[in-house]
Amino acid sequence: MSVRKASGPGRWQGVEIHEYKQAGSAPFREVSRQVLFSDPALAAQWRYFEVAPGGHSTLERHEHMHAVMILVGQGMCLVGDALHALAPHDLVHIPPWTWHQFRATEDSALGFLCLVNAERDRPCLPGEADLAELRKDQRIAAFIRT
Amino acid sequence: MSVRKASGPGRWQGVEIHEYKQAGSAPFREVSRQVLFSDPALAAQWRYFEVAPGGHSTLERHEHMHAVMILVGQGMCLVGDALHALAPHDLVHIPPWTWHQFRATEDSALGFLCLVNAERDRPCLPGEADLAELRKDQRIAAFIRT
Repeated sequence: MSVRKASGPGRWQGVEIHEYKQAGSAPFREVSRQVLFSDPALAAQWRYFEVAPGGHSTLERHEHMHAVMILVGQGMCLVGDALHALAPHDLVHIPPWTWHQFRATEDSALGFLCLVNAERDRPCLPGEADLAELRKDQRIAAFIRT
Repeated sequence: MSVRKASGPGRWQGVEIHEYKQAGSAPFREVSRQVLFSDPALAAQWRYFEVAPGGHSTLERHEHMHAVMILVGQGMCLVGDALHALAPHDLVHIPPWTWHQFRATEDSALGFLCLVNAERDRPCLPGEADLAELRKDQRIAAFIRT
């Protein structure tokens, strides 16, 4: 299949919509995952995630980096110790071992393309000491609320 | 720089706009190139190409594959022996050693994201025998006109 037509914002013919992660494996809320390209000839995997209004991805970090482009909607992200408002086509670079989380606004979904190396490590969740450190900044404390 | 804001369709703050290829190195017309993500930690390079109205990319093939998403505009592509009409968010998979070319329509630019392995071979241009083979299909002959 050379071409998969878009069938709507963040939807493609022949691309399955999955749960973001296994329920109970990590804290998240209303996120879906689609794999757009994953091929033995490609050293990367190209995915699309969609966070429903009011939802959020897991707060996590890992050795591999993320290259992200917002595709639809509005939201915010935490990258390290900074919060950023996000709109379509904005680019987000998440360096190795950097805490990060995405949130949709209350009235808009947030859909984004996310590129990762095909071979990569598993994400780490924050421990109590990590959370205490992050919460020293009140804006971040409010953002990473669960 | 964690976030690069989009400054318009197919434009980003802090991302330079380059010539697609060195003039005279290969046949193409009115194409620009931007590198959105290129990082030692990433096994891939994420680029954005924009073909101006009436323009076209080089007809070429290579061992590495392309993973493409149309971002703005309208156009068509040749992949192997098939032509496809393209609209925003359509996905195009170009397998190894497959002839391919992108064309914008006469009245619209065609902007697309293109993912490649960071380590990859150089493209090959068609020889006379390749062109003769491609031109056996009249629709393809019309499409690859220079």
